Amino acid sequence: MEKIKLMSLYTDFRKDMSYIEKELERSVQSSSPIVRQASLHLLKAGGKRIRPIFVIMAAQFGTYSLENAAKIAVSLELIHMASLVHDDVIDDSDMRRGLETVKAKWNNRVAMYAGDFIFSRALTSIGNIEKAPVHQILAETMLEICKGEIIQIDFQQQTDQDLRDYLKRIKRKTALLLSSSCELGALSADADSQTVRKLKRYGYFTGMAFQIVDDILDITSTDAELGKPAGSDLLNGHITLPVLYIKDDEQFKPYMKRAFTGVMEESDRQAMLRYIRQSGAIEKAQHVSDLYLIKALKELESLPNGKSKKALTQIADFIGQRKY
Amino acid sequence: MEKIKLMSLYTDFRKDMSYIEKELERSVQSSSPIVRQASLHLLKAGGKRIRPIFVIMAAQFGTYSLENAAKIAVSLELIHMASLVHDDVIDDSDMRRGLETVKAKWNNRVAMYAGDFIFSRALTSIGNIEKAPVHQILAETMLEICKGEIIQIDFQQQTDQDLRDYLKRIKRKTALLLSSSCELGALSADADSQTVRKLKRYGYFTGMAFQIVDDILDITSTDAELGKPAGSDLLNGHITLPVLYIKDDEQFKPYMKRAFTGVMEESDRQAMLRYIRQSGAIEKAQHVSDLYLIKALKELESLPNGKSKKALTQIADFIGQRKY
Repeated sequence: MEKIKLMSLYTDFRKDMSYIEKELERSVQSSSPIVRQASLHLLKAGGKRIRPIFVIMAAQFGTYSLENAAKIAVSLELIHMASLVHDDVIDDSDMRRGLETVKAKWNNRVAMYAGDFIFSRALTSIGNIEKAPVHQILAETMLEICKGEIIQIDFQQQTDQDLRDYLKRIKRKTALLLSSSCELGALSADADSQTVRKLKRYGYFTGMAFQIVDDILDITSTDAELGKPAGSDLLNGHITLPVLYIKDDEQFKPYMKRAFTGVMEESDRQAMLRYIRQSGAIEKAQHVSDLYLIKALKELESLPNGKSKKALTQIADFIGQRKY
Repeated sequence: MEKIKLMSLYTDFRKDMSYIEKELERSVQSSSPIVRQASLHLLKAGGKRIRPIFVIMAAQFGTYSLENAAKIAVSLELIHMASLVHDDVIDDSDMRRGLETVKAKWNNRVAMYAGDFIFSRALTSIGNIEKAPVHQILAETMLEICKGEIIQIDFQQQTDQDLRDYLKRIKRKTALLLSSSCELGALSADADSQTVRKLKRYGYFTGMAFQIVDDILDITSTDAELGKPAGSDLLNGHITLPVLYIKDDEQFKPYMKRAFTGVMEESDRQAMLRYIRQSGAIEKAQHVSDLYLIKALKELESLPNGKSKKALTQIADFIGQRKY
């Protein structure tokens, strides 16, 4: 299969996406210099803008209004950004996407309030949308994301967890927000309820796959590709899907124990990563991701053909083979 | 003047307030044991529930519905609670209202996510209110509160600030949320726009007075009365109104310098507090608070008489003479 570049999928929606990018920048303007700088730093660090693109594409299945869709897209991307800043404080992470994190470049308190600030901006962005379900869905989504972050604490370094625990966790961490992106995009354009439901499920399934692949890449990629040390999840005590398949392996246990201390000799970390890579755990995790992607594509089948359906299909394919 | 007990003001609204109390408890239920415990701990720590009572009373000036008013009251009280948890992380505070803070009893990460969680619950509570202005006002209020917290960082330990800087800060820290409590309470009951405006201004003025008195009490009260060390504001680098009046006093400067290190000998702290108390700064600050309360009472004048107007008047009086 030809390698897909995510950005090429955005071609048809380039104008809309650049409008959203400007709105994102506008939305984090602040009279406090520190916050403005911290927020812009975050924004420039980029990311794939998958939430906005999902909103835009889902909205194509109804009566599309860029202005309405953009409000929702900005809101969802900001919620995502806010949760990243807070995660970095919790995980004590210094690097993300190859750039210093806010908490490293400034400090924890700036990161905390920058997160709160961006969170609030997310609400302002949809403040004047006159649809109660939109507010309700967003509030529920934020609530579940928070619950997820908290449950992540409960589960840290806990080795007696199973596939169900993991799937519940990544649902809250990633899939829900992608699912809501599709749902709210479609809702904002008054798409019919069947279509809304299908897009919501598409978002959920691709979200699950996306996070599994993310967790795989944390083990299979180089530090340079990740922009942070490979194996960070384990060093932070997070047990992801590949590790779930190998955590009871007697030879692996001592690695895990050392990883949980949060610091590891460079050679030890590399040996641990090699051990996981050759264990077959990666392939098992990849398989689960593939199953989700099949489900995602199935949801699209009965939707009307067009640029948007094509792009959503390609995104699912992209997730299946992404290397970054 | 007879000493007013705040709780006695609530007599006429006791049933409504206990309904809100139950809703508050219900709203912080969570499947995560840590979060449930942390949130309940916060809730039990209490506070004066001034935001809910303002909502209830303001709603009396329209077509009162306890159910609607309660949603807004819960939302505003939760936003207040969430900002307290995050403040405690920032200020590294171990005690609040005589109880251990969440960050002390658990840790910073629990406090951070408990704050985020409560924040999200606040949104869920008003999620199904079908009035766009309510969402807009709440979003704006949260935004301004965040900005305030951030500006507080910019101003920490900065001695070249004036009355205007201080007033702007306490507006965001306290007055806005009280102002929005009155505004949203009245709006939720479809009060006429003149009434909404007057109540909003009443909430703003009492809020300004409330925070000034709070800042005075941080200096004039005992540790036992405060449930935390007196002078904490200065130890955390926050320059409040009384200190603003004395900060350029040559004999006071060395105290302030030592306070800004965050640790002070017990006898030194007591001497500093005595020095401020006898300087006349407290009386000057009290005078500013009194001016705000006069403005607050003026807003009430033209509103229809009744239990609610009487109680709002008494609250303003209470703030003027409160000792805790």
